[in-house]
Amino acid sequence: MKLRFVLIALLSLIFVSQAFSQSPAASAARAYRQAREHEIIEEFANLLSIPNVASDTPNIRRNAQLISQMLEKRGVKTRLLEVPEAPPVVFGEINTPGATRTLIFYVHYDGQPVEPAKWVGGDPFKPTLRSASLEAGGKEIPVPVKDQKFDPEWRLYARSTGDDKAPIIAICAALDALRASKIAINSNIRFFFEGEEEAGSPHLERIVEKYRDLLKADAWLICDGPVDQTRRQQVYFGARGVTGLEVTVYGPRRELHSGHYGNWAPNPAMMLAKLLASMKDDDGRALIKGFYDGVESLTETERRAFAEAPDNDAMLRRELGIAWTEGAGKRLIELINLPSLNIRGFLSSSVGATARNVIPSTATASIDIRLVKGLDHVKAVDRVIEHIRAQGYTTVASDPDEATRLKYPKVAKVIRQGGYNASRTSMDLPISKEIIAAVESAHGRVIKMPTLGGSVPLYIFTDNLKTPCIGIPIANHDNNQHSANENIRLQNLWDGIETMAALLTMR
Amino acid sequence: MKLRFVLIALLSLIFVSQAFSQSPAASAARAYRQAREHEIIEEFANLLSIPNVASDTPNIRRNAQLISQMLEKRGVKTRLLEVPEAPPVVFGEINTPGATRTLIFYVHYDGQPVEPAKWVGGDPFKPTLRSASLEAGGKEIPVPVKDQKFDPEWRLYARSTGDDKAPIIAICAALDALRASKIAINSNIRFFFEGEEEAGSPHLERIVEKYRDLLKADAWLICDGPVDQTRRQQVYFGARGVTGLEVTVYGPRRELHSGHYGNWAPNPAMMLAKLLASMKDDDGRALIKGFYDGVESLTETERRAFAEAPDNDAMLRRELGIAWTEGAGKRLIELINLPSLNIRGFLSSSVGATARNVIPSTATASIDIRLVKGLDHVKAVDRVIEHIRAQGYTTVASDPDEATRLKYPKVAKVIRQGGYNASRTSMDLPISKEIIAAVESAHGRVIKMPTLGGSVPLYIFTDNLKTPCIGIPIANHDNNQHSANENIRLQNLWDGIETMAALLTMR
Repeated sequence: MKLRFVLIALLSLIFVSQAFSQSPAASAARAYRQAREHEIIEEFANLLSIPNVASDTPNIRRNAQLISQMLEKRGVKTRLLEVPEAPPVVFGEINTPGATRTLIFYVHYDGQPVEPAKWVGGDPFKPTLRSASLEAGGKEIPVPVKDQKFDPEWRLYARSTGDDKAPIIAICAALDALRASKIAINSNIRFFFEGEEEAGSPHLERIVEKYRDLLKADAWLICDGPVDQTRRQQVYFGARGVTGLEVTVYGPRRELHSGHYGNWAPNPAMMLAKLLASMKDDDGRALIKGFYDGVESLTETERRAFAEAPDNDAMLRRELGIAWTEGAGKRLIELINLPSLNIRGFLSSSVGATARNVIPSTATASIDIRLVKGLDHVKAVDRVIEHIRAQGYTTVASDPDEATRLKYPKVAKVIRQGGYNASRTSMDLPISKEIIAAVESAHGRVIKMPTLGGSVPLYIFTDNLKTPCIGIPIANHDNNQHSANENIRLQNLWDGIETMAALLTMR
Repeated sequence: MKLRFVLIALLSLIFVSQAFSQSPAASAARAYRQAREHEIIEEFANLLSIPNVASDTPNIRRNAQLISQMLEKRGVKTRLLEVPEAPPVVFGEINTPGATRTLIFYVHYDGQPVEPAKWVGGDPFKPTLRSASLEAGGKEIPVPVKDQKFDPEWRLYARSTGDDKAPIIAICAALDALRASKIAINSNIRFFFEGEEEAGSPHLERIVEKYRDLLKADAWLICDGPVDQTRRQQVYFGARGVTGLEVTVYGPRRELHSGHYGNWAPNPAMMLAKLLASMKDDDGRALIKGFYDGVESLTETERRAFAEAPDNDAMLRRELGIAWTEGAGKRLIELINLPSLNIRGFLSSSVGATARNVIPSTATASIDIRLVKGLDHVKAVDRVIEHIRAQGYTTVASDPDEATRLKYPKVAKVIRQGGYNASRTSMDLPISKEIIAAVESAHGRVIKMPTLGGSVPLYIFTDNLKTPCIGIPIANHDNNQHSANENIRLQNLWDGIETMAALLTMR
């Protein structure tokens, strides 16, 4: 394992030594940031301290307001794009006389739901600086006094540090840097900062339709997702689709004493275990009929890009403490080109200190499904429901009434979740090549990923608006995205500022 | 289904009409109670309002103190039986000159852990009267003003109303009734009220050993458990043993974004589902090797008693809202003569509103095992652990370190729980017949159960002290024992007072 690290170090050296000279815009961004790390972190912490779960309407509006102010301060003309019952999109414009290109920067300012008890410190909205990641034993450190340096390996902890408020502060800092150095922006720029991505973007399609005229562009730049696990910058050209469902199965109407009724009353936890176990084989391949039908094959360029991407599997296994992986030996990078079915949680009665000797009354599993090109998110859930029925279940959409309970031996409530399909932009388009060149002007050679494993509703831009979509992520891969103790590694934030400066000024 | 109810009603009528005349002690208890329902409920509510989870030392001591006072008030000489770190046993004595028999009444005053959020009203220690069970739409009603009647179908809700504080108040009321009617107690009476039964009675064996000289008796009367589901009084002669274990399996060291790592990182929820599914077949029969080996067969008397017991299965299925049962068509009463393996809870990450698109890091299942005569509780857990290993798991006793994680593909942490074996007293002993006769003097023909499905550590009395042990339950079967919203049906409490009066005065 030591040898592997030496190799990685050597490879990094080779990349760095490729006689790479950074573009003036990226260099200016670096110099500006080095002189103002305190200010940048302070402004970022202020943004992070506003809770941002999409359903928390008052706080979501406070976020939108602050972000609008942050952009206005930089001379960006802003407005809120609204449809009823949706968090507003913060929209901003920079019009550049003579520009021949329009770029829209997409970011989302909402975050995943939080369970404060699982956060070290107990408050996901109290930004905290640590000397390293918690997993690596990072300790809380006070914000350094002015003029003391920030170590780039430090992490800033709070919900949405990485997913996805980092690009907002990176864009703001890049705008400041360009103005300070008097470097011109060469394109028409639009900012489109969404407020409900983590809730599945239920209104995005309507917002985009309503404001279609504002959203004419040559490309959407999706500032979301993590960089490669080697910490090298990556650019991606697609994302998986996503959907999901929640399944509840039923035992006795009330929890029963396991001694008086054990062996007789059906146990919903066991029923659910059997149902879930029937959904995948031991290698993690879905056993749902038709689950893989229709998967589109990759183009020559995409295949080459996957082949060129680094093989991080062994490093990741070590980092994650896992001695095996699903997929019968296939690499992670191959497996994200297949749809996936994932149990994101299950619950029946209690475990640990509050466990009681009962036969539970219900058991629930929450499942998410990732989709690749060629698959439909509605059909994917249909197929899982058909599978549940094929296991002898009657499916219902709400808790079963008495007649239903007494009529059917096995009843499963299925709550369908919204979702969207996968999307992919061709890497061979001129705009794709220009974007790659711009990011490489800041960081040298980047990793080109035909698709991200995660999901962003790119189809709205690529399929509805017929506009190419290219992903420019900032966050470190080990940012605990979607979990407790989300964080950003400071170097990733610093790099992000340079990326944004390069994109804003691309010729 | 209507026909069945008519039949039950007719059968009840036949029992009632068996020209049964109640013993003077039971009659005196009834008359006394009818005149003092307010006082009894008030004193009971006072007892129920003290939290009584065994680990809550200050409150457990407050319970013991109050119960001692309640007994002392009735002329019972009390003391606390103590061993280090154990909740005290409240011990009481009534010595009757010339008595030829000593009876020990066993009750436990501790209760199962509580999750207040699951209780209607939110406080398991705030006794609340309802017009019927919650399941039957019972509404909260104020305590009637003095001289207004209590409907016997009302329920009193609070932790331990049924399991197992009811016998304490029943004994106190019976003592009051006997004194008021000047009816003599004919045996030497001992009260042995334990404070950690729901925690598995970890110190009971030591307490009984230490105070062995105080505990010489002709029989232990175990006042715990529910009466029959038809609401008829039952007397039981054994109980299943119990043990358990908690199993945790491991995925990635931290929760991972299900998009970026789904299909590749092992999902511990799915691993656990497969592991649990492997433990039982679709009929609920355990697939653990050797799980049923050594089960002792029933005696002729026991077989007859089971045959005579009512078949409540159809009624219960209806009450519980279940259209099928485990056991391949066997009756509940047969199935409690087999060991059982029950998932009492499982948990991995979150479901519902806090579900996030992650691959969980761990998944945990809590399992209890019930044992019948001939089985050993330590061996039973051994066999489950062997089964887990046979599914490819390396088992550990605490969270695996990095080396263990990276060495073994599948790691399961197994936390063994304490436990004890099943126990049974012969129904053919003279004392067994005398106890049956005493209870029948209060209620007419009773149901005789060779064993209870639930567990009480009777082996300590039957095997260590070599004393017969007979169970005299009070609580209604639908009392939500061990769950949220535990309750007692008032008629059961009233009946219990008469039962206690009959036992205290048996000749």
